[in-house]
Amino acid sequence: MSTLWKQRYAQRTQRMTSSIIRELLKFTTQPDIISFAGGLPGPDLFPVEEVKEAAEAVLETKGRIALQYSTTEGYPPLREMIVRHMARYGIVVDIDNVLITSGSQQALDLIGKILVNPGDKLLMENPTYLGALQAFTMYGAEFATVPADDDGMVTSQLEDALRAGPKFIYALPNFQNPTGVTMPLERRQELIRISDHYGIPIIEDDPYGQLRYEGEHIKPLVVIDAECLECEHNGKYTGNVIYLSTFSKTLAPGLRMAWIVAPKDVINKFVQAKQGTDLQCSTFDQMVAYEVGRGGFIDRHVHRIREVYGHRRNVMLAALEKAFPDASLGVRWTRPQGGLFLWATTPDWLDTAELLKDAVKEKVAFVPGAPFFPGGGGHNTMRLNFSNARDEQIEEGIERLGRTVMRRVEAHKVQ
Amino acid sequence: MSTLWKQRYAQRTQRMTSSIIRELLKFTTQPDIISFAGGLPGPDLFPVEEVKEAAEAVLETKGRIALQYSTTEGYPPLREMIVRHMARYGIVVDIDNVLITSGSQQALDLIGKILVNPGDKLLMENPTYLGALQAFTMYGAEFATVPADDDGMVTSQLEDALRAGPKFIYALPNFQNPTGVTMPLERRQELIRISDHYGIPIIEDDPYGQLRYEGEHIKPLVVIDAECLECEHNGKYTGNVIYLSTFSKTLAPGLRMAWIVAPKDVINKFVQAKQGTDLQCSTFDQMVAYEVGRGGFIDRHVHRIREVYGHRRNVMLAALEKAFPDASLGVRWTRPQGGLFLWATTPDWLDTAELLKDAVKEKVAFVPGAPFFPGGGGHNTMRLNFSNARDEQIEEGIERLGRTVMRRVEAHKVQ
Repeated sequence: MSTLWKQRYAQRTQRMTSSIIRELLKFTTQPDIISFAGGLPGPDLFPVEEVKEAAEAVLETKGRIALQYSTTEGYPPLREMIVRHMARYGIVVDIDNVLITSGSQQALDLIGKILVNPGDKLLMENPTYLGALQAFTMYGAEFATVPADDDGMVTSQLEDALRAGPKFIYALPNFQNPTGVTMPLERRQELIRISDHYGIPIIEDDPYGQLRYEGEHIKPLVVIDAECLECEHNGKYTGNVIYLSTFSKTLAPGLRMAWIVAPKDVINKFVQAKQGTDLQCSTFDQMVAYEVGRGGFIDRHVHRIREVYGHRRNVMLAALEKAFPDASLGVRWTRPQGGLFLWATTPDWLDTAELLKDAVKEKVAFVPGAPFFPGGGGHNTMRLNFSNARDEQIEEGIERLGRTVMRRVEAHKVQ
Repeated sequence: MSTLWKQRYAQRTQRMTSSIIRELLKFTTQPDIISFAGGLPGPDLFPVEEVKEAAEAVLETKGRIALQYSTTEGYPPLREMIVRHMARYGIVVDIDNVLITSGSQQALDLIGKILVNPGDKLLMENPTYLGALQAFTMYGAEFATVPADDDGMVTSQLEDALRAGPKFIYALPNFQNPTGVTMPLERRQELIRISDHYGIPIIEDDPYGQLRYEGEHIKPLVVIDAECLECEHNGKYTGNVIYLSTFSKTLAPGLRMAWIVAPKDVINKFVQAKQGTDLQCSTFDQMVAYEVGRGGFIDRHVHRIREVYGHRRNVMLAALEKAFPDASLGVRWTRPQGGLFLWATTPDWLDTAELLKDAVKEKVAFVPGAPFFPGGGGHNTMRLNFSNARDEQIEEGIERLGRTVMRRVEAHKVQ
């Protein structure tokens, strides 16, 4: 009988490709594989005890509220806490600018829902976050791209790319997923200048902004936009940039707590869209997230995360040096200042999707880079996650990866 | 700057009307208004202590799993529990037929996403659930309708309605939202017969099925379809009916836990769509729901809910008799065998949207019926919720409603 449904699938299902990331996440559950494929935070850092105390306190004092329906916008004290939290980073908004979403993935879906008509062009970095491509594609988006280098989006090529007439620019300035690279201040300013000049608004996706392991904090686009010298906003939110962030990396992804910052009338549209999508996020999880965070715990906890992930990044960088000592081989990698990912490039002739098959036999996994490139290319790239493995696993896994690559290199020489 | 976004809204936002239900839910927060408008379960029945113990147990024993990402399909033990639970109601499926969703609203959204092309006709009861109309409308659905009476969908008019060439039939056979009416077995069999004959599949939405206060349980459509005499399924799921249910009414809506039953290949499409939508439901809430339910607590708890809601229904029915003693007035109401809602009809000339303005002044609220009618009509109808008020509130609220209606009637006589 299921053919009865199959012949009824909407056209947009043809755009749903079985996600490579999803297929690969299956490897992470095999205990003997060392996986750098996921984007998972290290569970050893989850504040289990704090969440337990918070859940108890919420159910003890406000149980009947926590288990009831609540407003689509989100739990007001949580939204207020987010407003205060962002103010410390220079993002000056009020509660009506904030909508709670079920992870940043839902923010991306709602953006697709209220902004994307079939055939609309969106301007993406090449490469960019796969989840955004998936979400926007479902609404019929097409992609124009601007190249990225070790400093992120190449803003000198932005005006060229704008000729495609994009509806908005989607950018991840901090420790980008997948490449781990960060846009310097000058490029951010240039991006805002061009965005303002041509009147093309920006979606700034910032899941990792707080996870910086070296160098100085760089202002987010939303702050640079608010501080522009020619305008009279005096640091107040202009509405030009829709800003996304999340507790998935600073608290726990299992609670699915993230938020969108947008102008009030755009928030109203998001709220209407979210109402038809899932009514609201879990009241309980929102109250637990607030209870954990309200005393400043998350800020303190972030220090610990930075320390551990920064160390793991160092371990991976050292392991890569050891596994690929010969620079003439042409294997290169980024040195991310923060975030969860490192990005490696192999020689041109080496297709990392093919390489993965060998790697899995060698019991190590990564994400091949090509699917992250809406503008094509990247067949010789891969994403390596360093947040969710112990030191010795990172060392062993990178050694296995080194062996796998070297075997291909030897075979290539013979040909 | 927000005009920059406004001029970029997708065309589908024009179909988003500010929800009347949502606007009305605002009344429920005013303490002096007695609201029959929401669809809220009674918070006095929430198993706060059981959820507290479950949350503690989950975080104590599996905290690092509960706070981590997990699979899009949902927490396997919860899906297995749902399979066992449904088997007791004659729905014989396996875990691969079950996807966990963030409330039934997300199930409706995912159905829209994978099945509805702009302009597709969907066959709905007139009236039907507003949330389904909202979800499907976002994907460009148009609606064909079949009338409903005090026994639900009038199946004798179904073949006529099928001439519109609908993609599927959406039905709520048990204690329908908004009318509270229930389809008798004969109509259900007739619906399945016609669906099979014409090859038009069915979405069966069953959030209230367990909340029956009088009369005998009637088999859901999905079971009748599996038991059809001519076919060889022997009670095994045919895939013809996609079945939706939820823990929102039997456990707690704040956890946003519901599920879809569908053929495996359709579940795969739902999973791909959900991945781009929000990745997964809260791992923590899924594990808490499983922990609360695994020892059979939900089944026991449902007995208590039935008792209390059944009583509240009786109180509302008695209050209506008292408030509208004169049958010649033309105010009628349904006697629901279960669920959360009762449906009242006023004289033809009385527009309940207008009446609501008076009612709010009188400090009582309900939902005017017209928005529930995709095929038009219903201007003299209203939905009354009886699950979320104490006896004396129900009595006082219905008395106020009676006064409000009578004032209109007097004014009408004068004209």
